[in-house]
Amino acid sequence: MHEVYSMQPKVNLWIEKDGQVVLSVWRVQLLEAVAETGSISAAAVKMNIPYRRAWDKIHECEERLGVKLVETHVGGTDGGGSRLTRTAADYIRRFRQFASGIEGKVNQQFQECFTLAE
Amino acid sequence: MHEVYSMQPKVNLWIEKDGQVVLSVWRVQLLEAVAETGSISAAAVKMNIPYRRAWDKIHECEERLGVKLVETHVGGTDGGGSRLTRTAADYIRRFRQFASGIEGKVNQQFQECFTLAE
Repeated sequence: MHEVYSMQPKVNLWIEKDGQVVLSVWRVQLLEAVAETGSISAAAVKMNIPYRRAWDKIHECEERLGVKLVETHVGGTDGGGSRLTRTAADYIRRFRQFASGIEGKVNQQFQECFTLAE
Repeated sequence: MHEVYSMQPKVNLWIEKDGQVVLSVWRVQLLEAVAETGSISAAAVKMNIPYRRAWDKIHECEERLGVKLVETHVGGTDGGGSRLTRTAADYIRRFRQFASGIEGKVNQQFQECFTLAE
């Protein structure tokens, strides 16, 4: 199986609740973008999606999980903005830990299954 | 994190070569359907896709991998049909082994990351 050297294993991970997506690599990136930029609109720009879609996805996650993920404050010296709740930060940390464990395993398992002659 | 009891981790796995999909859970199911039914047309029915799409996907995999996956014979007492090459059977076996290792790990890693309080 010499073709294996140009082959690459790929994985997509997500978490469902009652059959609906609540967390995924993409959704976690969106939440991280809110944390980094301090607003949903700047996060949307960073993720290259319309503001409305970013807002919808965040609120969809909140509704499905039954928890608040993003807190928005209006006005103040910084003109307002959004930040993650501690619950959101906790979910992100757990999801990242989950995903990185799997990603490492994917490469190892691929090597074991595709490169060893039998 | 009591919500975790109704949450379920999900994974999708595939293998790319030069940035193009060569094997995936779905593609492997399609090849297995050819093996089980003895023809591409019956495999297409089983997979609930048009014959043309089944044919295209199989030939796409063959082209991208640079190997023959399905052999078709015409006529004979059974009226002709298709079967997998030994190479295809070998790829399927390796992919299934790869995927089942990951799927087990996904559940275990999810439990570790989402159920343990910290």
